[in-house]
Amino acid sequence: MALKGKALVGQSGGPTSVINSSLVGVIEACLASEEIDGVYGMNGGIAGVLEERFFDLQAQSQSVLDGLRKTPSSALTSSRHKLQDEEIPKVIEILKAHNIRYFFLIGGNDTMDTIHRVEAACQKDGYDLKGIGIPKTVDNDLFGTDHTPGFPSAARYNALSVKQGGQLARDMRQVDQFVVFQTIGRDAGWLAAATACARQNEDDAPHLIYCPERRFNREKMLEDVKRTIDRIGWVSVVVSEGLLDPDGNPVSASTTHDAFSNTEFGAMGGASVGIEVHKMISEATGLRGEFQVIESLNMSAIDRAVPLDLEEAYDCGREAVKLGLEGKSGCMVSIERVADEPYQSRLTTVPLSETAIRAKAMPEDFINNDGNDITSSAMTYLKPLVGELPPFERLRPIFVEPILK
Amino acid sequence: MALKGKALVGQSGGPTSVINSSLVGVIEACLASEEIDGVYGMNGGIAGVLEERFFDLQAQSQSVLDGLRKTPSSALTSSRHKLQDEEIPKVIEILKAHNIRYFFLIGGNDTMDTIHRVEAACQKDGYDLKGIGIPKTVDNDLFGTDHTPGFPSAARYNALSVKQGGQLARDMRQVDQFVVFQTIGRDAGWLAAATACARQNEDDAPHLIYCPERRFNREKMLEDVKRTIDRIGWVSVVVSEGLLDPDGNPVSASTTHDAFSNTEFGAMGGASVGIEVHKMISEATGLRGEFQVIESLNMSAIDRAVPLDLEEAYDCGREAVKLGLEGKSGCMVSIERVADEPYQSRLTTVPLSETAIRAKAMPEDFINNDGNDITSSAMTYLKPLVGELPPFERLRPIFVEPILK
Repeated sequence: MALKGKALVGQSGGPTSVINSSLVGVIEACLASEEIDGVYGMNGGIAGVLEERFFDLQAQSQSVLDGLRKTPSSALTSSRHKLQDEEIPKVIEILKAHNIRYFFLIGGNDTMDTIHRVEAACQKDGYDLKGIGIPKTVDNDLFGTDHTPGFPSAARYNALSVKQGGQLARDMRQVDQFVVFQTIGRDAGWLAAATACARQNEDDAPHLIYCPERRFNREKMLEDVKRTIDRIGWVSVVVSEGLLDPDGNPVSASTTHDAFSNTEFGAMGGASVGIEVHKMISEATGLRGEFQVIESLNMSAIDRAVPLDLEEAYDCGREAVKLGLEGKSGCMVSIERVADEPYQSRLTTVPLSETAIRAKAMPEDFINNDGNDITSSAMTYLKPLVGELPPFERLRPIFVEPILK
Repeated sequence: MALKGKALVGQSGGPTSVINSSLVGVIEACLASEEIDGVYGMNGGIAGVLEERFFDLQAQSQSVLDGLRKTPSSALTSSRHKLQDEEIPKVIEILKAHNIRYFFLIGGNDTMDTIHRVEAACQKDGYDLKGIGIPKTVDNDLFGTDHTPGFPSAARYNALSVKQGGQLARDMRQVDQFVVFQTIGRDAGWLAAATACARQNEDDAPHLIYCPERRFNREKMLEDVKRTIDRIGWVSVVVSEGLLDPDGNPVSASTTHDAFSNTEFGAMGGASVGIEVHKMISEATGLRGEFQVIESLNMSAIDRAVPLDLEEAYDCGREAVKLGLEGKSGCMVSIERVADEPYQSRLTTVPLSETAIRAKAMPEDFINNDGNDITSSAMTYLKPLVGELPPFERLRPIFVEPILK
């Protein structure tokens, strides 16, 4: 017999295109349960809990819920407030006052840590609370799951951008010879790696991918760039915002120190790596090119969301409720990959203690020895998540015989 | 009886998502004509003509042509070579050698000028050549047509970006309070204005739109920004790359003069306006926010192309051939709007001499008196071109009664 009481759900950290699908999964599974007699939504994450600001999610119409599955970003609104230990008693008091027995948070590793601490404190206090995490982050840097909902859609955005931007760069190579695409991903290169899915034909963009798992060497990059331009006349370069130079300093800050305060860029995710690398190439080669800094645009682009991602996000939400009703607690819903092609997966769980740690980097063998591209293992992993990209056509190289030449 | 001979078609200047549709329109109309006994494509614009580099477009399969209608950018490849007067005799020699009697260029105002000069020189030389222009530019700054194919799709890309980015910014307003989106559009604010189509509900992004038609005043912008943040807690700002300060200097260069050379940014379209405005807001308010600099990504994103745009581009290509076969010359195909809602248009022509001039700015009454937004006249113009955007849902503000507070 499952615990009778209310459920509380929150969205934490940065939004994704599919995080509202997870939310709707939680709401719909709660509404279908007899034991859960109310579904509350944290207005502004854990900060909202501390101020007792709860949406009444039971009072939302089905048409609102259906619409939310097609709406990106965090409908409950988010906060980045880190729950302090001294605030936990207050949280428990509020949970008790509302008889909240199910506690769901959709988020990344910090979020899993929050559930972990709240759930442990309740246990110590003798208050029976089922705390379950639902994975979410475009960065894909969460341990204990094949991937995180939100990543496939952001990855597809990047792949589409680099494919379409590369098509333009190739056709304009007599005018501009390089393009630098910067992606978010401070500690791990998953979103940079995903741009490799853009390649349809040989010599398609991207030609060079630099991930934060490897130290970035300016001279080496310039050699890579020159070699590619010499061979095919242009180059597409992808950089992760979190790149560090051989001394461990952010590449983003290497030469723009005077013009931009570290605070400004640091706060927003090292937005200047792309500009820096653009400048390095431009200065070293004298060629023209452009940089593209999309920042968070790939976190909320539902028109480019992967259908698989939307489904998995929703399923993870439902699964969390199911687990809670079964008496499970202290765990996160996890996606386990069963097969690569055709892709198959199933939902399982991982203890919160295993996820609530540092960011998950890409495996060593996902990056090539030169540190300027990904490997076929990485492609096997990425392909089913990003999905098929629209195929592009090229004119066949059939030319008219010159008469005057 | 139409002139017997070959047709030559080229793509000039920057690509768009739909320029290959115009190309296919030309090719298919030529193939269907009995008078035209060959279709050549300039490999690399007018520079390709001078070197007699012609694709044999008759030799391309129908499946290649069908694929090109779904492929962005310039399949023939482009150049920005400006045809010199002393090169024109060489062009005529090559046209004669191949018996090219139909000369089509898909491009903007510089391109129309090129056709104009070549056609006039042929006429003077007694060589009968039909020269027809097909409009193209994402910037929409071409005289003599309601809009240019390519603009609607780039405009939609911008509107989608600002809508989806605004959704994220709104939900994250407790963390970051502003977002600055920079769009291409050096001389005219059409692409900045189009972001207004992102608004679905009151207070939706964008809140402030700055176009190059009006001088940009830093203090005024900061007041606009602060007023909006005070009222709703966040702000979405759209800036055109070509903004000038009250003294007529590019805003892009106002304070990053030391860190970035003018050449670097000037060459790529003033990519730093967004960064500059971000910096102004950040310094004046002490708040966090981000900038988004997408550069040319909206020029080649076929997944966001407007169906109307793809059709009109194709129709303009076919129309050019029809006009040539009817004996017309020295004109550009033009889209004439017949009705706003439901949108209706028809194809007509405009003399090349009227289009081959400076960039077309937005009408005075498209921008509001404060110079920080567009008017309802502009919206009437833009709406049918950008098309419907995906509707987003919001939770209804139904809250749980606090117990402890």
